[in-house]
Amino acid sequence: MHEALLGRLVVCVGESYVLTSPDDQAPYMTDWRGRYHGSAYAVVRPSDVAQVSSVMRLCHELGVGVVPQGGNTGLCGGATPREDDAVIVLALDRLKAVRAIDPVDNTMLVEAGCTLAQIQLAAEGADRLFPLSLASEGSCQIGGNIATNAGGVHVVRYGNTRQQVLGLEVVLPDGTVWNGLRSLLKDNTGYDLKQLFIGSEGTLGVITAATLRLMARPKQRAVAWLAVTDPQAALALLGAARDRLGERVSAFELISQNALDVVLRHIPGARLPLAKNPPWSVLLEVSDVAADTRLDESLEALAADAFESGQVSDAAIAASVAQCEALWALRENISEAQRIEGLSIKHDVSLPVSAIPAFLESAERALDADYPAARIVAFGHMGDGNLHYNISSVDAAQNAALIAQTEAVNRCVHDIVAGFDGSISAEHGIGQLKREEMVRYKSTVELALMRRIKEAIDPRGLMNPGKVLPDL
Amino acid sequence: MHEALLGRLVVCVGESYVLTSPDDQAPYMTDWRGRYHGSAYAVVRPSDVAQVSSVMRLCHELGVGVVPQGGNTGLCGGATPREDDAVIVLALDRLKAVRAIDPVDNTMLVEAGCTLAQIQLAAEGADRLFPLSLASEGSCQIGGNIATNAGGVHVVRYGNTRQQVLGLEVVLPDGTVWNGLRSLLKDNTGYDLKQLFIGSEGTLGVITAATLRLMARPKQRAVAWLAVTDPQAALALLGAARDRLGERVSAFELISQNALDVVLRHIPGARLPLAKNPPWSVLLEVSDVAADTRLDESLEALAADAFESGQVSDAAIAASVAQCEALWALRENISEAQRIEGLSIKHDVSLPVSAIPAFLESAERALDADYPAARIVAFGHMGDGNLHYNISSVDAAQNAALIAQTEAVNRCVHDIVAGFDGSISAEHGIGQLKREEMVRYKSTVELALMRRIKEAIDPRGLMNPGKVLPDL
Repeated sequence: MHEALLGRLVVCVGESYVLTSPDDQAPYMTDWRGRYHGSAYAVVRPSDVAQVSSVMRLCHELGVGVVPQGGNTGLCGGATPREDDAVIVLALDRLKAVRAIDPVDNTMLVEAGCTLAQIQLAAEGADRLFPLSLASEGSCQIGGNIATNAGGVHVVRYGNTRQQVLGLEVVLPDGTVWNGLRSLLKDNTGYDLKQLFIGSEGTLGVITAATLRLMARPKQRAVAWLAVTDPQAALALLGAARDRLGERVSAFELISQNALDVVLRHIPGARLPLAKNPPWSVLLEVSDVAADTRLDESLEALAADAFESGQVSDAAIAASVAQCEALWALRENISEAQRIEGLSIKHDVSLPVSAIPAFLESAERALDADYPAARIVAFGHMGDGNLHYNISSVDAAQNAALIAQTEAVNRCVHDIVAGFDGSISAEHGIGQLKREEMVRYKSTVELALMRRIKEAIDPRGLMNPGKVLPDL
Repeated sequence: MHEALLGRLVVCVGESYVLTSPDDQAPYMTDWRGRYHGSAYAVVRPSDVAQVSSVMRLCHELGVGVVPQGGNTGLCGGATPREDDAVIVLALDRLKAVRAIDPVDNTMLVEAGCTLAQIQLAAEGADRLFPLSLASEGSCQIGGNIATNAGGVHVVRYGNTRQQVLGLEVVLPDGTVWNGLRSLLKDNTGYDLKQLFIGSEGTLGVITAATLRLMARPKQRAVAWLAVTDPQAALALLGAARDRLGERVSAFELISQNALDVVLRHIPGARLPLAKNPPWSVLLEVSDVAADTRLDESLEALAADAFESGQVSDAAIAASVAQCEALWALRENISEAQRIEGLSIKHDVSLPVSAIPAFLESAERALDADYPAARIVAFGHMGDGNLHYNISSVDAAQNAALIAQTEAVNRCVHDIVAGFDGSISAEHGIGQLKREEMVRYKSTVELALMRRIKEAIDPRGLMNPGKVLPDL
């Protein structure tokens, strides 16, 4: 079967685009962090939707599984094949055209393999904003962003990827192409099928193109680094910022002392923006499409009032674009600094925003009691209730011991999250990583509904096997 | 079976809440416009989710269909039973508690039978905005708003109902309760099931409660009535408004001369806001959470520049809340004025915003040619590409002849809409009205996907039979 498959794949996409040698396959068999490894009959790189369709039809006929892969920047192993599954990897990287951009309709038609940065740039070229923004934007692909409903730093203002998608083109498991590339803001003709595929992590079909919504480009931006006494003060500051500036609040990031400390220690050129590293910092960005207001003054006034009321004890407001970038770099380099330092146990959780202070307190108390060597590096998108909550020890031996207890640490953190009606995966998805973990926190009713959807769209279970849905 | 059913329904909800007499049933058997009529074994009015579940379980056991009904204000007959179906009507009007409101999380937990106005008021009481706003807000219920993904006048800023929903509680066709009442802004743990039920018009389950997202309340509002030469000028004005004011643009309504004329003739107290009724008017509302800017001045400057550039030939800017309301009343009374005048053939279509001028031109040309007696009353939410496009004749006899040709007129208009990649139902849904019409405009792939979803969630076809999905 194997040889027959390869021959027919070559007919579909051409010999150069069916990768079978271990060297050629290597970059596709491991995720970028090197946490997941797998194997596949072939890596297939179609050039357009017709080729995707013919590959899918073939796999459907032969009962071969398909693992769609975009930029391979996921954090849960969703795009990496497992060992010994009967699958191919379907790489979308050759579908990389920005097909159209319409600054009157504020829409853009892109193929799945476009990188996020490419899309941002194209939007900018038409004096528009595509608001999705994440650390991996230089290499992640929009198909993957949509398949995982990616989040990022501007969700507080613009919403998740789901909110940016007006239409999709999807190749279904049997090779049928669904052309749902609408560019309408309102369309109530039956079930909104695109919602099914957004966030389904390649388990229902292959996204090949999308119509995206564009926004007006802000003409002003102001960024502040604010020292807050505790998360409760950050919460009050968030409320005040929203009440005074509404949608202008385009990022509200919470950074713990430990998180900033790791950056200052490991990232060359990183400088403390305040006199000292406070227990908690907030990176607040506001931006405005209107040019005739003084956003910097509004931000200063907000900071001054927060200082008066005791929420903020120190503040640095960027006075130039370079200073904006420097403040943002402190936030964006947290993950990289942690990578340099060594392994850590990572959590991507979300909570009702009001529960963040109590969650942080409960989780710290529980971890201190059971894992005295654990150091907590907490940071994240507080504006949308999303925390990255990472655990490690500075001492290498102690860290190794801690990492060995990953499962128990996850359980401890996730149980507390669940107690606050939070989510164990805010923006990274389920992939391979949290498939079984999810069973503990989702109702049987919900898991059964998910299975019914899976069976309805992919009855033979060929799409991205072993991902998202737990084993029965 | 009938008697046994009634007896067991009484056990579920109590005798007073199983309505069987024609008088008691009457208000539930006809939609508010009196266009649809039907019959049912009983109208059942449960008091809570447990009762909804027991009624659904019973109907599932006996193979009885269920027609969920909210405020009964729909425009496509989606909540009205058909004649002679073996169904009950399940009225949600007793589930009317606002269970919780949280101004820190900006969320609200409401039961399905709450009216939209009740929810708006409760949000206001907590100094927050629930942004959904429609003509029927005094009587429509949030369960119905969600089931139909209702639109309204502020979609241009805040999105459709879908964007306002964070979580749902749904009773499935077999009586199982799915509690998906999350209040998280980010949650990527598996398929986003709530999206399935939003906009499915009661064909997949019964929405019993929802967690809604609240917004900061605007502290300023400014409203202008602007005369534009043609829809192309309105489009340019929309672009300019967005580029200068971004999210502050909270309504952008286009009103044709005929539409304003009908209001001036039939609505007592309606007064022309400008020197004369222009070929096209724009009602533009801007609002801002920030109090420290001069929004009225920004709107005046926008209008002045549009006048300079020839897009706008006259403008009235409201100088008081009363004047704002008076301008809005001109827009909101169009449907009522048309109702007073007599029957009309209505269309609720959406288009890529940039296609609106060409659509209006094409449709008028086609109608003029084939239906010389037709007068077009066009208006709608131009900011989101949604037009209400109504056809009637001022002469009663000619109008009767025109109404008799409804199907052909629909075909004419909808074919032109389809030619511009538009939608034949922007915000009103499919219901009974457009079920067969939809078949002409949707691909077989899409219709097949819809059916697969329906079969997966409601395999016995008991939920709202004869709605949304076309007959096979």
